Amino acid sequence: MSVFLHNNHLNAAEDDFLYHFGFGKYTKDLAQFADVKFVCTGGSAHRFELYAKLFSKETALPCSENLALSDRYVVYKTGPVLWINHGIGAPSLSIMLNETLKMLAYAGAKDVSFIRLGTSGGVGVAPGTVVISDGAINGELKQKYVQWIAGERVERETHLDEGMRAELAQSAAHLDIPHAQGKTLCADDFYEGQMRLDGFFCNYESEDKFDFLRKLQSLGVRNIEMESTCFSATLLRAGVKGAICCVTLLNRMDGDQVKLDKDTYLEFEMRPFRVVTAYIRKQIDA
Amino acid sequence: MSVFLHNNHLNAAEDDFLYHFGFGKYTKDLAQFADVKFVCTGGSAHRFELYAKLFSKETALPCSENLALSDRYVVYKTGPVLWINHGIGAPSLSIMLNETLKMLAYAGAKDVSFIRLGTSGGVGVAPGTVVISDGAINGELKQKYVQWIAGERVERETHLDEGMRAELAQSAAHLDIPHAQGKTLCADDFYEGQMRLDGFFCNYESEDKFDFLRKLQSLGVRNIEMESTCFSATLLRAGVKGAICCVTLLNRMDGDQVKLDKDTYLEFEMRPFRVVTAYIRKQIDA
Repeated sequence: MSVFLHNNHLNAAEDDFLYHFGFGKYTKDLAQFADVKFVCTGGSAHRFELYAKLFSKETALPCSENLALSDRYVVYKTGPVLWINHGIGAPSLSIMLNETLKMLAYAGAKDVSFIRLGTSGGVGVAPGTVVISDGAINGELKQKYVQWIAGERVERETHLDEGMRAELAQSAAHLDIPHAQGKTLCADDFYEGQMRLDGFFCNYESEDKFDFLRKLQSLGVRNIEMESTCFSATLLRAGVKGAICCVTLLNRMDGDQVKLDKDTYLEFEMRPFRVVTAYIRKQIDA
Repeated sequence: MSVFLHNNHLNAAEDDFLYHFGFGKYTKDLAQFADVKFVCTGGSAHRFELYAKLFSKETALPCSENLALSDRYVVYKTGPVLWINHGIGAPSLSIMLNETLKMLAYAGAKDVSFIRLGTSGGVGVAPGTVVISDGAINGELKQKYVQWIAGERVERETHLDEGMRAELAQSAAHLDIPHAQGKTLCADDFYEGQMRLDGFFCNYESEDKFDFLRKLQSLGVRNIEMESTCFSATLLRAGVKGAICCVTLLNRMDGDQVKLDKDTYLEFEMRPFRVVTAYIRKQIDA
């Protein structure tokens, strides 16, 4: 299915400047994106540059230069796979999704899937576990993405693709990478919103933190990050399939600080990449 | 007044790893931050590197290398002034504020002020106007920053320092830079949350957009960005003075797209820098 604009105000004849990518519909040759089948995204620009180059090396698909002309995001292309970072948090992700979806719609791309490859805090799972999300809940503990439009609250449904989830889990199993499926809490901050005890502010006690984490566990939550509700709701609304595959850097039941030596960190950071690229290579036969 | 931790769970004897800066209390010499008086912040990493280097050139204060050891944020120091980017949106900003405030508290910094130098969309003001915020309102049109902690909604008061605002306005007047004072709308996304007609999605009409913009005008709003409630509430709570000084790149009453030639863009981008650095140089006699 084609990616199509959900907006009849955009005039087909006029240019549309994708401000945060630094190029417009007519100022870049968007036809180069017509063959895109997968958009891989995650927070860090550096990590997505690394992932793109590594995927290129492994598949022998050529890797583009950074195609973004602004410093807000990086955009790399390796054959039918895009690698675009989204920064931290739902607001930053929402811009990246809007502008990427517009770009793909203008390019006439078809049957595109998005996968978020991120880092996260585990809830009752060992550090290094790759969590493949089967749902996303917000700070209110609802499976909703909340927007404020014209001063009014709008709730959007969240959804992640079951088929992709099952195939990513198979891929992890095949690679012998520790993995779990479960819900993901999308927090709007890293400290108080995740009940950490190590922020600049802390008005609650250790037992409040553990009560909250146990409540999350009882709801089926296996990890905490900061983008999943926006990601899963925006793609559902766009009619595009999405999956989320995040490695946990710590088990929040054991602490709040990320305490990994550099080699372990780098190895953990590669796990979502290994799981996702094995899946993608099968799909695109690369 | 010293920057002091609002958290009695942090053990003075233990290290505290500032994950998104990539260093800890004991893994970096934090004493180098003891003399900090101003933290200048804004979205783009590239712009804050540029600002830091330019400030160094203009004042002959030496500019540090990028002191961050992670790629999430950049941290530059020029004498008593820090230049740290915060990415896009409140969640990304909240991490930067938590880790910067912890760093300054550990360093024993005193009498620190924060200034956000950003870009924004104008509401009824000409492109290029520097808006010095006298208040921040959220998507609900309330002067609050909303957090979700342990599944509960927590509203934080917002406040910006009146004295700094007056001095920044004087500085703009002295430099003959077009400026205004007024409220700032903090949206959680760039498209629907700001009633743009040019997002991937648009379920409202042009007249709904203008109704909203006129409502904002009647509330005293002069510009729209994505960080002001988090910024003004977090600093109030920390007991640290804050000001927001953003240039407008367009007048939303005239359109949604940022359509500036490169030279105009670069000149506009320098306006908050010129206003803020003239003020800072007077304060620190540099």
